[in-house]
Amino acid sequence: MAYTLQNLSDIEEIKVLKHRYFRGIDTADMALLGGLFTEDVAVVYDGGTYRVSLAGREAMLEFIANSFHSGAAAMHVGLMPEIAITGDNSATGIWYLQDVFIDLEKDDHTFGTAIYTDTYRREGGAWKIASTHYDRVIEVLTKFSLTNGRVSVQRLATTGRKPDERTDISHLIHWDE
Amino acid sequence: MAYTLQNLSDIEEIKVLKHRYFRGIDTADMALLGGLFTEDVAVVYDGGTYRVSLAGREAMLEFIANSFHSGAAAMHVGLMPEIAITGDNSATGIWYLQDVFIDLEKDDHTFGTAIYTDTYRREGGAWKIASTHYDRVIEVLTKFSLTNGRVSVQRLATTGRKPDERTDISHLIHWDE
Amino acid sequence: MAYTLQNLSDIEEIKVLKHRYFRGIDTADMALLGGLFTEDVAVVYDGGTYRVSLAGREAMLEFIANSFHSGAAAMHVGLMPEIAITGDNSATGIWYLQDVFIDLEKDDHTFGTAIYTDTYRREGGAWKIASTHYDRVIEVLTKFSLTNGRVSVQRLATTGRKPDERTDISHLIHWDE
Repeated sequence: MAYTLQNLSDIEEIKVLKHRYFRGIDTADMALLGGLFTEDVAVVYDGGTYRVSLAGREAMLEFIANSFHSGAAAMHVGLMPEIAITGDNSATGIWYLQDVFIDLEKDDHTFGTAIYTDTYRREGGAWKIASTHYDRVIEVLTKFSLTNGRVSVQRLATTGRKPDERTDISHLIHWDE
Repeated sequence: MAYTLQNLSDIEEIKVLKHRYFRGIDTADMALLGGLFTEDVAVVYDGGTYRVSLAGREAMLEFIANSFHSGAAAMHVGLMPEIAITGDNSATGIWYLQDVFIDLEKDDHTFGTAIYTDTYRREGGAWKIASTHYDRVIEVLTKFSLTNGRVSVQRLATTGRKPDERTDISHLIHWDE
Repeated sequence: MAYTLQNLSDIEEIKVLKHRYFRGIDTADMALLGGLFTEDVAVVYDGGTYRVSLAGREAMLEFIANSFHSGAAAMHVGLMPEIAITGDNSATGIWYLQDVFIDLEKDDHTFGTAIYTDTYRREGGAWKIASTHYDRVIEVLTKFSLTNGRVSVQRLATTGRKPDERTDISHLIHWDE
């Protein structure tokens, strides 16, 4: 079944929306991120050793601001979208996540992948993320010092929250161990 | 030369087709994969130490089911498509592959890239992969234990074929060494 | 604001243009690369320990031919485009770069990401890269030998410039240290 011009336009807008999300988190661009979610966004992330579960844009932004902090170096890329327009102002999306997260404060290095299943809603003419859930496909943990790497550029050191600016988000994360 | 609406619709459908392929292999989703190839699909993969050559959907599915087994953790992402519509129901595609393959049973870690050159055919209204060939650009081998990593999530441990479910596919693979 | 058919066609053409650029550099396909830039292309790359600054297609091609040399193994993938058509023959683009660069002659391994901000211009019916600038998000340096990896495929060993074919491009690169 062929896509209409409206479908293709919506799909391109939704791709750009999600691309901005990933660019926003890795650079802690909170102004950019502020416009990407619905007020009632629902979020669930199933990792190997954690489960994040939260509701609402305010909680989401607080979660991001504290996760992408000044001690981290992060790469999150959303790839291979499968977008379906389900109504005039609603859509679903599947994405493949590849991520590297280095927490220099904890000497942790995480490499992983996951599959996202999202829903999107158009509000006031702009597509927004209404719900987002990922489930890990692979996750590999190591101590960063054991990789023999040296971080020579770390954008979040400048843009991420410093220790005294951070707030407690532990109620949003359940750790298995 | 501008793309027509029909071209852009077909290109989006072909992208989704290939995206499903990669999502399917890394999760051993054989039901999803079953619908993605033409009956006469032709496959050639040129790696650093191997050459895979096979013909037909049945052989392809058997190859995948045994390669993405319960002892593996895999990431295969197809990026940067260059799709050309060559007829009402035919198309070609170039893709850039990035892959990580960890075989925990053999303690092997492979990181690589390759360039795919594909052909696609529309059958019964749905685009399918009619031929696919990749040629490696880089490939880096190591022992997984030497990376100091620990696999904390491994989807294929659940979805991949267990040792007693596997079949012999050695006739489809030529190893250089 | 919805995209028009012309917009979507232009966006797809610009994506393919940039995809060819990345495929071209990692394989040192100078014939492919020759057609991708405007005569007056402006280039700035801000890395962790270097700044590349150059002007003009000739300088760009010379820079690439010497950087992607026979001693290197390279992966550069451009992801998550945010393309905006700004006029009949002009556009802007944001891309997320992920790269691995192994210089076997220097035993250097670089893993990094960056955000590109590009401009494009249509000339003689074909979109070309008119300016391109990247700014690093993360960069991790190590000695390749410390990764315990072995390069089993290295396309540039065949296609890249051999030591006696290389020219001096040190005037295009400012090293911090």
